[in-house]
Amino acid sequence: MPKLHHHPLEPYSRRIRMALAEYGVATELIEERHGNASAGLITVSPEGITPTLIDDDGTVACGIEAVSEYLEETRAGERGTLYGTTPAARAETRRLAAWFDRHFNAEVSAPLIDEKVTRRFLTREQGGGPPDMARIRQAQGRIPYHLDYIGALAEARNWLAGERLSMADLAAAAHLSAVDYMGEIAWSGAPAAKLWYQRIKSRPSFRPLLSDHVRGMTPSATYADLDF
Amino acid sequence: MPKLHHHPLEPYSRRIRMALAEYGVATELIEERHGNASAGLITVSPEGITPTLIDDDGTVACGIEAVSEYLEETRAGERGTLYGTTPAARAETRRLAAWFDRHFNAEVSAPLIDEKVTRRFLTREQGGGPPDMARIRQAQGRIPYHLDYIGALAEARNWLAGERLSMADLAAAAHLSAVDYMGEIAWSGAPAAKLWYQRIKSRPSFRPLLSDHVRGMTPSATYADLDF
Repeated sequence: MPKLHHHPLEPYSRRIRMALAEYGVATELIEERHGNASAGLITVSPEGITPTLIDDDGTVACGIEAVSEYLEETRAGERGTLYGTTPAARAETRRLAAWFDRHFNAEVSAPLIDEKVTRRFLTREQGGGPPDMARIRQAQGRIPYHLDYIGALAEARNWLAGERLSMADLAAAAHLSAVDYMGEIAWSGAPAAKLWYQRIKSRPSFRPLLSDHVRGMTPSATYADLDF
Repeated sequence: MPKLHHHPLEPYSRRIRMALAEYGVATELIEERHGNASAGLITVSPEGITPTLIDDDGTVACGIEAVSEYLEETRAGERGTLYGTTPAARAETRRLAAWFDRHFNAEVSAPLIDEKVTRRFLTREQGGGPPDMARIRQAQGRIPYHLDYIGALAEARNWLAGERLSMADLAAAAHLSAVDYMGEIAWSGAPAAKLWYQRIKSRPSFRPLLSDHVRGMTPSATYADLDF
């Protein structure tokens, strides 16, 4: 069985867990801890990068793009693509996945996860300490802008990159779900994004994420509700 | 003829210019200016993201991963792959390309380009102003570490991701060449990386980059020399 080294709240790891379920690949999950990578991970990725997938034949795919594209190349088959069926559709999927992995991550998920979660598990020398409230407020202020963008795409196209579910949806949902775990999303102000997220949230591939519990941090009251 | 919207010193744009030449795709280059995207770019990418490729059939690929993978899907043919011929080789190419695009970029190229170039072309409101010397020195301090990594890979494998030239080499060379333009690389201290860079630099695909001149900034004395 393939092994996935992951962080439970990291959006990149969450996307790959969803993708594995969408492709129908049963996987052994190995949870990594901040600032303390497992021996199994360090052996194949000295930098301790997550997500890292070790396939049955020993192939190692390390980092979000490598794992995501590797699964598409080896597990999508003829009908199971999560990137799209034409080069143009695939370019649009990758544009949007990168949008969430770079811009949403830099503006929202990385600062919130850093300040509210990661720093609690690090020593002072590793960068641990009390949260930077100004950084948290700045990240919170960017959320409505991204919800509007998601809502507009979902209303125009059914799914974010087009007619069918793609890695763009999984990327966006992975980031949003991490932020939602922390109770940071005011869904009532973004009805179109909420409808899209309800559809994602009710997929079987999303269910394992809803039972996640990050050590020392209770999820928000509606995190696991399909009717939120 | 396809159109590429690019920034001359941006590593992502530089990688795509090299890739286009390696794939043998003649392209019209449209130079973008900081803080002032062209009308042609804004029409297809409201955020003004570079590199953006507009293909002859109107297909738009926007951002480094989308453009890079799009070219591989549509231009590599049977023998011209820049990712590799097996899923494992392709995963290793993508791991390394992401290493340079994320870690080298965050630690070295982005801070140096921001502080030494970009800020000179922005208004105070846009973030312009004098360079932050502490940030420059911190970035400079990380360069030897990355040169060692490149040298070790090149000595072990011929090219960075394996036996043949790949997007990993182009990604690393694109970042290094931007930093080299600014005269920030002490090649004499990194003989293995230097040998690898000499091989890259002598490829026809690299030549157009060597004649680049960024407005208001003269390249370092040895930037265009094949014997540096």
